[in-house]
Amino acid sequence: MTDTTFSAYRSELLGRDEPPPCSTDGAALEESARRIMAPGPFGYVAGGAGSGATVRANREAFDRHRIVPRMLRGAHKRELGVRLFGVPLPAPVVLAPIGVQTLVHPDGELAVARAAASVGLPMTVSTTASYPLEQVAAAAAGPRWFQLYWPDDDEVCLSLLDRARRSGYATLVVTADNWAFGWRTTDLDLGYAPAADGLGSANALADPVFRRRLARPPEQDRPAAVARWAAMFTGTDRDWDQLAWLRRQWAGTLLLKGVLHADDARQAVAAGVDGVVVSNHGGRQVDGAVAALDALPAVAAAVGDRATVLFDSGIRTGADMVKALCLGADAVCVGRPYLYGLAHGGEPGVRHVLRSLLADLDLTMALSGVRAIDELRPGLLRPR
Amino acid sequence: MTDTTFSAYRSELLGRDEPPPCSTDGAALEESARRIMAPGPFGYVAGGAGSGATVRANREAFDRHRIVPRMLRGAHKRELGVRLFGVPLPAPVVLAPIGVQTLVHPDGELAVARAAASVGLPMTVSTTASYPLEQVAAAAAGPRWFQLYWPDDDEVCLSLLDRARRSGYATLVVTADNWAFGWRTTDLDLGYAPAADGLGSANALADPVFRRRLARPPEQDRPAAVARWAAMFTGTDRDWDQLAWLRRQWAGTLLLKGVLHADDARQAVAAGVDGVVVSNHGGRQVDGAVAALDALPAVAAAVGDRATVLFDSGIRTGADMVKALCLGADAVCVGRPYLYGLAHGGEPGVRHVLRSLLADLDLTMALSGVRAIDELRPGLLRPR
Amino acid sequence: MTDTTFSAYRSELLGRDEPPPCSTDGAALEESARRIMAPGPFGYVAGGAGSGATVRANREAFDRHRIVPRMLRGAHKRELGVRLFGVPLPAPVVLAPIGVQTLVHPDGELAVARAAASVGLPMTVSTTASYPLEQVAAAAAGPRWFQLYWPDDDEVCLSLLDRARRSGYATLVVTADNWAFGWRTTDLDLGYAPAADGLGSANALADPVFRRRLARPPEQDRPAAVARWAAMFTGTDRDWDQLAWLRRQWAGTLLLKGVLHADDARQAVAAGVDGVVVSNHGGRQVDGAVAALDALPAVAAAVGDRATVLFDSGIRTGADMVKALCLGADAVCVGRPYLYGLAHGGEPGVRHVLRSLLADLDLTMALSGVRAIDELRPGLLRPR
Amino acid sequence: MTDTTFSAYRSELLGRDEPPPCSTDGAALEESARRIMAPGPFGYVAGGAGSGATVRANREAFDRHRIVPRMLRGAHKRELGVRLFGVPLPAPVVLAPIGVQTLVHPDGELAVARAAASVGLPMTVSTTASYPLEQVAAAAAGPRWFQLYWPDDDEVCLSLLDRARRSGYATLVVTADNWAFGWRTTDLDLGYAPAADGLGSANALADPVFRRRLARPPEQDRPAAVARWAAMFTGTDRDWDQLAWLRRQWAGTLLLKGVLHADDARQAVAAGVDGVVVSNHGGRQVDGAVAALDALPAVAAAVGDRATVLFDSGIRTGADMVKALCLGADAVCVGRPYLYGLAHGGEPGVRHVLRSLLADLDLTMALSGVRAIDELRPGLLRPR
Repeated sequence: MTDTTFSAYRSELLGRDEPPPCSTDGAALEESARRIMAPGPFGYVAGGAGSGATVRANREAFDRHRIVPRMLRGAHKRELGVRLFGVPLPAPVVLAPIGVQTLVHPDGELAVARAAASVGLPMTVSTTASYPLEQVAAAAAGPRWFQLYWPDDDEVCLSLLDRARRSGYATLVVTADNWAFGWRTTDLDLGYAPAADGLGSANALADPVFRRRLARPPEQDRPAAVARWAAMFTGTDRDWDQLAWLRRQWAGTLLLKGVLHADDARQAVAAGVDGVVVSNHGGRQVDGAVAALDALPAVAAAVGDRATVLFDSGIRTGADMVKALCLGADAVCVGRPYLYGLAHGGEPGVRHVLRSLLADLDLTMALSGVRAIDELRPGLLRPR
Repeated sequence: MTDTTFSAYRSELLGRDEPPPCSTDGAALEESARRIMAPGPFGYVAGGAGSGATVRANREAFDRHRIVPRMLRGAHKRELGVRLFGVPLPAPVVLAPIGVQTLVHPDGELAVARAAASVGLPMTVSTTASYPLEQVAAAAAGPRWFQLYWPDDDEVCLSLLDRARRSGYATLVVTADNWAFGWRTTDLDLGYAPAADGLGSANALADPVFRRRLARPPEQDRPAAVARWAAMFTGTDRDWDQLAWLRRQWAGTLLLKGVLHADDARQAVAAGVDGVVVSNHGGRQVDGAVAALDALPAVAAAVGDRATVLFDSGIRTGADMVKALCLGADAVCVGRPYLYGLAHGGEPGVRHVLRSLLADLDLTMALSGVRAIDELRPGLLRPR
Repeated sequence: MTDTTFSAYRSELLGRDEPPPCSTDGAALEESARRIMAPGPFGYVAGGAGSGATVRANREAFDRHRIVPRMLRGAHKRELGVRLFGVPLPAPVVLAPIGVQTLVHPDGELAVARAAASVGLPMTVSTTASYPLEQVAAAAAGPRWFQLYWPDDDEVCLSLLDRARRSGYATLVVTADNWAFGWRTTDLDLGYAPAADGLGSANALADPVFRRRLARPPEQDRPAAVARWAAMFTGTDRDWDQLAWLRRQWAGTLLLKGVLHADDARQAVAAGVDGVVVSNHGGRQVDGAVAALDALPAVAAAVGDRATVLFDSGIRTGADMVKALCLGADAVCVGRPYLYGLAHGGEPGVRHVLRSLLADLDLTMALSGVRAIDELRPGLLRPR
Repeated sequence: MTDTTFSAYRSELLGRDEPPPCSTDGAALEESARRIMAPGPFGYVAGGAGSGATVRANREAFDRHRIVPRMLRGAHKRELGVRLFGVPLPAPVVLAPIGVQTLVHPDGELAVARAAASVGLPMTVSTTASYPLEQVAAAAAGPRWFQLYWPDDDEVCLSLLDRARRSGYATLVVTADNWAFGWRTTDLDLGYAPAADGLGSANALADPVFRRRLARPPEQDRPAAVARWAAMFTGTDRDWDQLAWLRRQWAGTLLLKGVLHADDARQAVAAGVDGVVVSNHGGRQVDGAVAALDALPAVAAAVGDRATVLFDSGIRTGADMVKALCLGADAVCVGRPYLYGLAHGGEPGVRHVLRSLLADLDLTMALSGVRAIDELRPGLLRPR
């Protein structure tokens, strides 16, 4: 049961002749991304809503919980693997959905899919991916999740679900918190709108039902197609009855992303979801929103054993993962860090970031005396 | 009932060919104002009393409250409009009184009045405006409020009220917290005193009763007129009985500005005001004063349904507005941001700042699952 | 009863043609002192013990209390004057003892005495003053206090007390917290020891009893005299019985300075002192010591009406004074700020700093609706 | 009983003609170390795990406790000496184990041993010292402690213990928290691994049992020897039964280092240790771990009188020592500061740092009115 794969990356890094594609430290990684990326794409990725209060809150929340390491536990034997929705994973870590990844590197989602598959983690492909979901699926054999920005055209929606199912996406992540774009001051000041440029329209342009909605084929009038696509899932919030309808349309695993209140978690369970993702969209939507970690315990308590709880928004280190898992998450999602890895070096950059995070998680558990994921419980933490 | 006017400004900004006149982020806006303005005027506008502790406190107080966004509420249909003192407004937002606005741009209050009217928000014209209240009233057709620095000469006071009434100012905002100037170290170190230069004497010089008080017409001895004017409303605090007297003189809406203690709020209601403005004058008067937001809940509880509660001091984002409205305010006042907009680009600069704030408010409500202003209640927030 | 002297300094500053000798803001004042002073003297004045934790703590403590200004109190009529130990003072403010002031300006204590007298505040002359206490007394006619570093030679001690009495020093401030020098890293790193250079020996060299202790007159062997003097009051802590003895030797007002614990305050009262000074010596003695303001309420409660409580350590603004007076102090001591004023401009510099602080106090009270010092009570404050 | 040795260093510093080898302030000392050391060694010494959260937490924890100095205690007579495990020490201070000290200065552990002996404090020699334990023992006559990274080869382990015993090491410190290296991002980004270069193999290469384990003598195949050595004590956590076994093998004093939880402290006592060291390895192992000082009170309460409690991780000043001793530690360990002293000036640099810390401790006690170590109790502190 000993798993030394992850922590072994430490020795591999120290033994290599060349420096890694980017830093092993989350803050340094973001700083070097700021240097190598153009202001527009960097601002789009790193930026948050409004004053950035929620981005900061997400990070500060972790610092209010401290790990109390335990000694002499024989933790050299440990197992990070879990079963998530019946699927064995090497660790309870998922790549969060991020759209338009070619903004950052021409290989975009294809590189990320390959890197994720190489370490065995699920990648969540966005509705607004730069490549059609079929092409991302074909790029690598890892676990496939699909994120849905919910179109207001039911037939287009069902067409997307059908394509995802046929391409082997086992889990559908419905994003509830981004039906309109937040007030992102960095983008607004730069006049930067990648979605408006059609970078996130690949899934639409490849969709037969969507194409029938257009007066002219996108090859002849791309701007109209792009605008039609954007209009389908922005500006139209949904309700809980509609979620129950969606549940009936999707036989696979269904997650609702963006849950921050215990009552919403209860309603999601009542609507039949298999899990909720506690997330404030990385601080990109509501300025001044509760830190995702601060919202986690109440959501986990409300859900209990009836569904799975994932955590997203702010994970930068192994300790962050440990804390979220202790506070009630069954798995955690990682977002910006892997995209910075993509920016620094394509697929190898993503792999480096993922392996670093897993090694950090592994060592943090080891040195805290934790031998398995289910030992990550509130008692391992104490308040600052 | 759907109102998409405000949030639509987001798309408008992203679609425009030229950059907006100034940043959409409050902190960046102040920083660029620091760069483009001369030190005296900038220090006068941005500066606070003493060590600046209250200016900082005003901002920090917002960070201690966090919004808990709710999902799937159908919030694409929402209504920001309110009735305030019987008048329909597109949003519960008022332009706070700021004197001598030609310090910042030659169009001063005229530009601000036009911008406010263009979005339908009330502008509060200061007693020490750079233009006479009649001229500001003539500049635009929006809702008109008049702020009173209370002269110690009752006839001059009544003359001002009469002029305001005749020019269509429906609401009188009596400022209680600025009967003497605070210890503003930035101005003192620079020796900068715009009021002493007579910039804020337009309403006096145009007042027939005031002119009769002068030994010589102001056209012949401007310094004497300016000094006489300043002396009328500095150095003389008032009491509650005098407020009851003023109440009898003004048939319109009467607000008392500068209330920070629940007992003062009760006394104001007992004196017959229609509302109170919770404010510490933007941190410009008492160094070390309570943050205005920290004072709000107790004042709102003390006032109850008997009067209207406005909030002023520290609003920079849509989330700030949401928090103040949740904590008991019926409407919020915005000050320095619109003046920075004025500094950056006259009327269009002010309009940009106001539309940005409204769009931010609109999107923050939307993405928090809030469909109407009266849904902004304490339960939407939690402590940090 | 109206007193407009203090706040009038605001208009005077704004009306003057030349800039004041130094900033009206405490932090800016210290920064400009850092620029104009040599590193040794500046470090000696500004520095604290060890890591500087107590210097920072002293300031941060003020920020945890906030003033809640009250409106319409008729506070244009107000009185800052108090009687302290039977002596009328224009405000409850005392110049704290600081030794070797010629480090900062050649006029040293003489300039400070003149400036203090010009505004009517007591100056506390240090045992280690650069000029003999008689000469400082002769420089100005203001209230005179004498600070005692307690020599271990009783006859020298009594000689000092006798000289102080004869020169009109009505109050004796016995410093309990500086019988050895703290670990002041700035001085140690620079090798800077002004006392060792004999700068603080003026009172010794002028003392007939002390001179009899020397093998040779100081004019012939100054180093030996300086060393003898330093040895008399460093390295020898005292006890409560000895304080009772000292009480019997001094008929005037007796204060014990350096009290931070309620039990020590009770013992001081039992030993017969007229008052205690809550102080951590400006953070210069014990690194990591409690902030003086945090220690004040318990000391004030322990002392009750039986003695007078002064507050020292950290006062930089009028709001600081208001807070300390609200939390139980009968008067406050100001230290470093007046010395920075001395560094910037001799007597006029000190006067500027003192008048600024008094104006700030006056305006802070006025704008908080406070008409007299005895209205400064805990209810004016609330926690942050 | 008067001990003026330590505080006298203050006068010695002020009286010397040349500046000391490095600063007397912990933060300035680290900053100058950053300047004079190469990035690799400096990062190795100063760096912490992951984001550095635990390094920061260790320091911040001290600031939440404040000393309340007491007056007139006659504290000029005081005694810092203690008996620790039956051995008289001049103060309850121990040099924490740090490996591979020649990274910092060619004299490495030999210089540190001489400096420690010169002030009478125990030095804890690391398993991964740059010089064999016998050579370090021979360098100076001070109290000798030996730190054990526990090899997974029992015979090698016993050989090390036997050598330590024969060289006069009275105390064995078993490190429980470093059986694998933490995720130290500074080292990883630089690819810096001093242990991998064999710098810490001196004790192995000199060990007869270890040498028999090698296919070829280390003189012929040093890389193989180094790798074998590293493999012996990395990657293999132990359990409590094995600690009981080790207890039986070592007749001297036995301490377990790395204890942060009260239950682990109880188990250590049950396994027969003489003491525990509360430590998070200076923040180098688990990012996000509890501050060592925050863990101290519960461990001390759990241990009670049954064993001795040492404190390690974060000590930079005399006040830090006072606080740890008040909160339950019987003695404190100092780490990085003496290594920075070594970097600045070899043996004299170490001695300067140690004497500075002792003088600071002495003066902090004196000026807090504390006459002996056993007066350092919780009542001397209060929360911030």
